Amino acid sequence: MLWALLIEYDGAGFHGWQRQDGLTTVQSVLEDALARLHGGVPHAVTVAGRTDAGVHAAGQVAMADLPDRLDARHVRDALNFHMKPHKVAIVQAVPAPPGWNPRFAAIRRTYVYHILNRRARPALALGRVWHVPAPLDLAAMREGAACLLGRHDFTSFRAAACQAKSPVKTLDVLDVARHGDQLAIRAEARSFLHHQVRNMVGTLRLVGDGSWPPARVAAALAARSRAAAGPTAPPDGLCLMRVDYPIALFDQDRP
Amino acid sequence: MLWALLIEYDGAGFHGWQRQDGLTTVQSVLEDALARLHGGVPHAVTVAGRTDAGVHAAGQVAMADLPDRLDARHVRDALNFHMKPHKVAIVQAVPAPPGWNPRFAAIRRTYVYHILNRRARPALALGRVWHVPAPLDLAAMREGAACLLGRHDFTSFRAAACQAKSPVKTLDVLDVARHGDQLAIRAEARSFLHHQVRNMVGTLRLVGDGSWPPARVAAALAARSRAAAGPTAPPDGLCLMRVDYPIALFDQDRP
Repeated sequence: MLWALLIEYDGAGFHGWQRQDGLTTVQSVLEDALARLHGGVPHAVTVAGRTDAGVHAAGQVAMADLPDRLDARHVRDALNFHMKPHKVAIVQAVPAPPGWNPRFAAIRRTYVYHILNRRARPALALGRVWHVPAPLDLAAMREGAACLLGRHDFTSFRAAACQAKSPVKTLDVLDVARHGDQLAIRAEARSFLHHQVRNMVGTLRLVGDGSWPPARVAAALAARSRAAAGPTAPPDGLCLMRVDYPIALFDQDRP
Repeated sequence: MLWALLIEYDGAGFHGWQRQDGLTTVQSVLEDALARLHGGVPHAVTVAGRTDAGVHAAGQVAMADLPDRLDARHVRDALNFHMKPHKVAIVQAVPAPPGWNPRFAAIRRTYVYHILNRRARPALALGRVWHVPAPLDLAAMREGAACLLGRHDFTSFRAAACQAKSPVKTLDVLDVARHGDQLAIRAEARSFLHHQVRNMVGTLRLVGDGSWPPARVAAALAARSRAAAGPTAPPDGLCLMRVDYPIALFDQDRP
């Protein structure tokens, strides 16, 4: 029987989502737990977003095949038991809708990127933020972010390794908010290119610290060249908050 | 010259605030950094709240004597440099007002206690929350919390080791809020007894999971006996958010 899983993990404990030989990844830990429940027979999972090494998730979504005898509570608890002591948790498990695929059925992905914007290094938020000591101008960053909204060719913000067929994506939300000395940058789209959020954040940082005028973001986008945009922001600050489907699968708050 | 310091730390990295032989404490790390700036001469710090092992701080306040040649920025940066790689940061430094004492001049201390209330263990919030799998009834916990507001003899919520002269304290705020699967319990008072917040939280948890009717909190308070109240909640969920003085010293948001 196929299940939809809502998954939380601390990216610091894993070499990203995707299975790699000899490395601890979220997929390998989850698939090892699945195999235990299938008497040692390997079972592959499919996932909504293959997060990079160091990127966190509060609302990753995957699909897994589990023995028919288990109910939702047992699926969640048994997988959590077998994934100990890794910093990953199945928060909810619900039966997968017929024909559902967590990646292709997704209509919206929400990421939040956190920047700690103060001189002193992070103590409590260590590993969860990008530490930017130089003061960042929120209004300028918002002006720069507005240039990226809508349907565009995002080649300038795409990793060389990106496997997407088209560089055209529609960015629905790119919001910058300040809470004390933390900045939260929220990005929402049906899907993103590889490194797109981190490349947009690395570019907005240049606007925030005054290195770039906000309008240069539009020029970087129009250039359709990775070299025209800013550097890739580190993974620590990024968290996949939620993935939405045409019908709500899980009981979740809006981030 | 005397300075007021706003300090953040991850309690997991320390055996509490107070200096103890052979153990890493926040006080010892800070005083070792101070001694470096005084050419090796030891200098003691005074503090607003001596937090226990494992308890975090986002807004601890201390007073330290520093060489006259340093300005506020240098005080902060030099102490942060010498406290590396410990998970503690001086967020701000300001000149101490004449005759000021961080402990006795405080008019309000604000603590927040976080509970993760779901079946799945914490992944992202590990070490920052008390994991309580049983569903907690918010309304019942609020009713129980209301019994503790005001001026009372808090003997029932006082640690055996508490050194306060009187068990009488005035509790101004004890608020319970839910954000998704997290509960935040905020406690505000001029001062607290040793373990008072953790003992109140451990008691409210009994109300939340239905073990106690809310009115039993009032009976526990009236009993003036530690045995009448609930167990001590673990330190991981507790954070000293801020300390207030008659005149605001730091540029801080309200928690």
